Amino acid sequence: MSLSKLARELDDLELSRMFGDDFLLTGEKTEDELSAVFTVADALRKLRMDGVSTRIFDSGIAVSLFRDNSTRTRFSYASACNLLGLAVSDLDEGKSQAAHGETVRETANMISFMAEVCGIRDDMFIGRGNSYMRAVSEALDLGFAEGTLEQRPAVVNLQCDIDHPTQTMADMNYIIQEFGGVQNLKGKKIAMTWAYSPSYGKPLSVPQGVAGLMTRFGMEVALAYPQGYEVMPDVIDTALENARSSGGKFYATSSMEEAFSGADIVYPKSWAPFASMKTRSKLYEDGDFEGIKRLEKEMLAQNALHKDWECNRAIMDATKDGKALYLHCLPADISGVSCEQGEVSAEIFNQYRTSLYKQASCKPYIIAAMIFLAKVKDPSGALMQLARSGNPRALFK
Amino acid sequence: MSLSKLARELDDLELSRMFGDDFLLTGEKTEDELSAVFTVADALRKLRMDGVSTRIFDSGIAVSLFRDNSTRTRFSYASACNLLGLAVSDLDEGKSQAAHGETVRETANMISFMAEVCGIRDDMFIGRGNSYMRAVSEALDLGFAEGTLEQRPAVVNLQCDIDHPTQTMADMNYIIQEFGGVQNLKGKKIAMTWAYSPSYGKPLSVPQGVAGLMTRFGMEVALAYPQGYEVMPDVIDTALENARSSGGKFYATSSMEEAFSGADIVYPKSWAPFASMKTRSKLYEDGDFEGIKRLEKEMLAQNALHKDWECNRAIMDATKDGKALYLHCLPADISGVSCEQGEVSAEIFNQYRTSLYKQASCKPYIIAAMIFLAKVKDPSGALMQLARSGNPRALFK
Amino acid sequence: MSLSKLARELDDLELSRMFGDDFLLTGEKTEDELSAVFTVADALRKLRMDGVSTRIFDSGIAVSLFRDNSTRTRFSYASACNLLGLAVSDLDEGKSQAAHGETVRETANMISFMAEVCGIRDDMFIGRGNSYMRAVSEALDLGFAEGTLEQRPAVVNLQCDIDHPTQTMADMNYIIQEFGGVQNLKGKKIAMTWAYSPSYGKPLSVPQGVAGLMTRFGMEVALAYPQGYEVMPDVIDTALENARSSGGKFYATSSMEEAFSGADIVYPKSWAPFASMKTRSKLYEDGDFEGIKRLEKEMLAQNALHKDWECNRAIMDATKDGKALYLHCLPADISGVSCEQGEVSAEIFNQYRTSLYKQASCKPYIIAAMIFLAKVKDPSGALMQLARSGNPRALFK
Repeated sequence: MSLSKLARELDDLELSRMFGDDFLLTGEKTEDELSAVFTVADALRKLRMDGVSTRIFDSGIAVSLFRDNSTRTRFSYASACNLLGLAVSDLDEGKSQAAHGETVRETANMISFMAEVCGIRDDMFIGRGNSYMRAVSEALDLGFAEGTLEQRPAVVNLQCDIDHPTQTMADMNYIIQEFGGVQNLKGKKIAMTWAYSPSYGKPLSVPQGVAGLMTRFGMEVALAYPQGYEVMPDVIDTALENARSSGGKFYATSSMEEAFSGADIVYPKSWAPFASMKTRSKLYEDGDFEGIKRLEKEMLAQNALHKDWECNRAIMDATKDGKALYLHCLPADISGVSCEQGEVSAEIFNQYRTSLYKQASCKPYIIAAMIFLAKVKDPSGALMQLARSGNPRALFK
Repeated sequence: MSLSKLARELDDLELSRMFGDDFLLTGEKTEDELSAVFTVADALRKLRMDGVSTRIFDSGIAVSLFRDNSTRTRFSYASACNLLGLAVSDLDEGKSQAAHGETVRETANMISFMAEVCGIRDDMFIGRGNSYMRAVSEALDLGFAEGTLEQRPAVVNLQCDIDHPTQTMADMNYIIQEFGGVQNLKGKKIAMTWAYSPSYGKPLSVPQGVAGLMTRFGMEVALAYPQGYEVMPDVIDTALENARSSGGKFYATSSMEEAFSGADIVYPKSWAPFASMKTRSKLYEDGDFEGIKRLEKEMLAQNALHKDWECNRAIMDATKDGKALYLHCLPADISGVSCEQGEVSAEIFNQYRTSLYKQASCKPYIIAAMIFLAKVKDPSGALMQLARSGNPRALFK
Repeated sequence: MSLSKLARELDDLELSRMFGDDFLLTGEKTEDELSAVFTVADALRKLRMDGVSTRIFDSGIAVSLFRDNSTRTRFSYASACNLLGLAVSDLDEGKSQAAHGETVRETANMISFMAEVCGIRDDMFIGRGNSYMRAVSEALDLGFAEGTLEQRPAVVNLQCDIDHPTQTMADMNYIIQEFGGVQNLKGKKIAMTWAYSPSYGKPLSVPQGVAGLMTRFGMEVALAYPQGYEVMPDVIDTALENARSSGGKFYATSSMEEAFSGADIVYPKSWAPFASMKTRSKLYEDGDFEGIKRLEKEMLAQNALHKDWECNRAIMDATKDGKALYLHCLPADISGVSCEQGEVSAEIFNQYRTSLYKQASCKPYIIAAMIFLAKVKDPSGALMQLARSGNPRALFK
């Protein structure tokens, strides 16, 4: 699609609330706002592929706060910020005085004097990650309102206990491309299913985020997991509600086969039971490390009961023409490769590898689009102006 | 104040020694040079708030060496460097070969081939931090003189055992703003006082730096601490001398009440006794970790004798109209919030929180101004040219 | 030499294979390609010293992956990338999920969506470092071919088990300057010798790299080491072959004196025996930590038999007029300074210190030149265009 067509698409959307706002949960965004993220992501990609600079900042800091390990989201965030002209500054809590009696409010202000964006990953404890982001967000509102901060950095959720918006929006961006437009996703079936992993405690943010997001586009979302692997209760309500509004469908099932049956897209991925994660968070809070060890052993034993939840040729054959699109947020536990038995057979993984990497390639653009929309008042005009100026991203290319 | 007025102010100052020079101690700088830092800081802030780029470097490295934890100084330094167009490169001594038989002279040269500035925090050991910075500075002089380095990076002291110039200059920048100009500070009383903290070994750089700096502007500086919490002896001599020259006043007292009485500004903050810190540094050198444990226990016990040194409503009532400006370099030990009993009551801290954050917001600009003045021969002309070119810091804002 | 002369030199070289290619081993590059790196390094230095911006990227990521400690190479890489306009993003494997079941292929793609270059140091294990780089390189080829990556990042070897091309090319760049042109190196003798160090396990990449590179310029290369300190067998064959082709000379000797005798250049530096390093790598693989301890003890004892392999005044007197150029990749083990007895006497080290630092100063430019040649199709035209545009690297200088 041409850049001017993408820009015109933005003109038809109601985006006034995005300027200056955070991106914390997809559920808080309107359909127009979600569409805008996809469109701006596509436009930024187009400009970059055409060799045009999308640097909208001459200077400015992008705070990067990761409370959990990360490769792809960390690099996606760094790439997105760099694409817009921002310099990443890591808040390494181990090297900072953040622990020494500082409040969230104080830290949020102290790191933001010249920050335009504040990317946070905090997905380890139930009830904590998203709350922390909201506390930062409120602190920034206050700091800006009282004149401490000269600009209001946008908070971007790089994964929390509830949602993983940069992941699911990138996933959505990818399937829109693959299916030739969002309109073609109406009625398509996606199986978001649990899968066996020999490690425990994988975050719930992806299945929760997928259930909440994909139901908004008229898709049929089947959420499948063995009994005991329930996600946050709210997620189910929201997904049902979304499906009702969008003309889609949502249901939970304990049969992987049922979910895969006739599916256009499958997203099999391990996660930990919400209830166990809540217990685990509580044990950490109490400092009960014996209890944690015991719980983790139980969780592993529980996982081991469901080794048959693997995505392999046999179950893929149940999907639409046996050719459903296979998604994963990576890294995957691949049977016989990264573990003895895992989420997916090597055959299936290899078959979809290129596709999986392309899925991942959407994330930097999605993050850049989220920042762009929070920072630019007239995104359509801005994109056109970038295209017109045509400053090269790289000389001599 | 308009940018051209700020630029004209610079024209009246004798700044020839600043170009190419370090910023290691405020005591080494003339009144003109200190004034220039405040003026350039204000000018850079004005330009940034007007949306004008202050990027004076297209490329260039800013070395960042922190030998102690830091949140706000680290982000202030990163922000300042980014504002001028420099990319921060951390010298993480744990990941480098610096420890493996390299001399200071060698390391200083090796990291500086394309460095414009070298920011160093080294405040842990008495007699070491500032000496280290001077050794780096001499190595850079030599490296530049002998043609190893194509440019001479400016060393900026981000806190040492003697002084904390970026902090105290930011403090001064803030109170100049609050009192409507440096001329209004003449005769104003500032109480730089010790305060109780449940932790030991806090650096002396702030009280020492405040005593040395604030006495140069005709202020009345009362330095208060319990017996036994003496600072570096030289500081007292310098402060007395400064006060004499500037028409100000300086005295030390062991009464927090006396210091607060009628004060326009109060700066209550814990620090460790200079003598104990010297002993501690010696014990570290000797590797006497038993001795250190014993000493730290003694220091905590000594602190505990002075829990009444808290900044609260009662003692604030003794200040000018009960409304003195409360300063702190943050993070503060807040009674009932970050500790059971600390440097300041929650009531007072909350009352001044916005003010404290604004005080902190001066630091990035002060650091940027120090670098600017070390790197630009005609700062007044340069500021005017930046304003005239009017390159936007951020497109579409 | 003028910039246009440097540019014209490039025009006479066959460089078509460099565009889009990696720099993994000097042995894989033609004489023309090596010459081009020196010429572009000189041109970039000239432009920078003339105050001209060499920023060819407006945005873009430079991945930095160090699996071993580093000061000078890390800063050289960061400086080189910054000089060209790229932002360094560290892949810290400890903070990433790289270990959790990810393949090299996956990681290589995940970090490269917006990367232009990928600098890797991996020198710890025999048979691993260079192979790892090749695996990354192949993954990037595939990723680019299948459309996952929009650009193909160039892999730059920042030291591996076989070679240290950025070091030896910088060394070569330096001696070309010192001897007034590459043509003057014909027939010059360089002694690449082992030297005693109280530490074990120093990499072989420098002696191996020097033997392979310096023999290509018609130099006489004497590789000297005590019996038992053999390097990779291939290196000897290659060096002999190179010498034959270039009209130079190569021989190995177990006499430091013989190597130094009449030498124009000496490069005495400790390394570990290839055979021991291979054993050590195997022990690591097997997790045999007792075996490693035992081996390291043996290696230290073996070293201690050769304390007389020190570069000092006496042996320097055997060189050409007693005035050979002394090289070292730094940091050196300096007798009586960084250790009791080491690779070089303090007298000799001090005599050559400035020269050593200048040698080191070539590395950032060499790395920048390697990246430049991989990224710019018409390097000669690009350099001339940079010169003509004359954008300042720093305003107000």
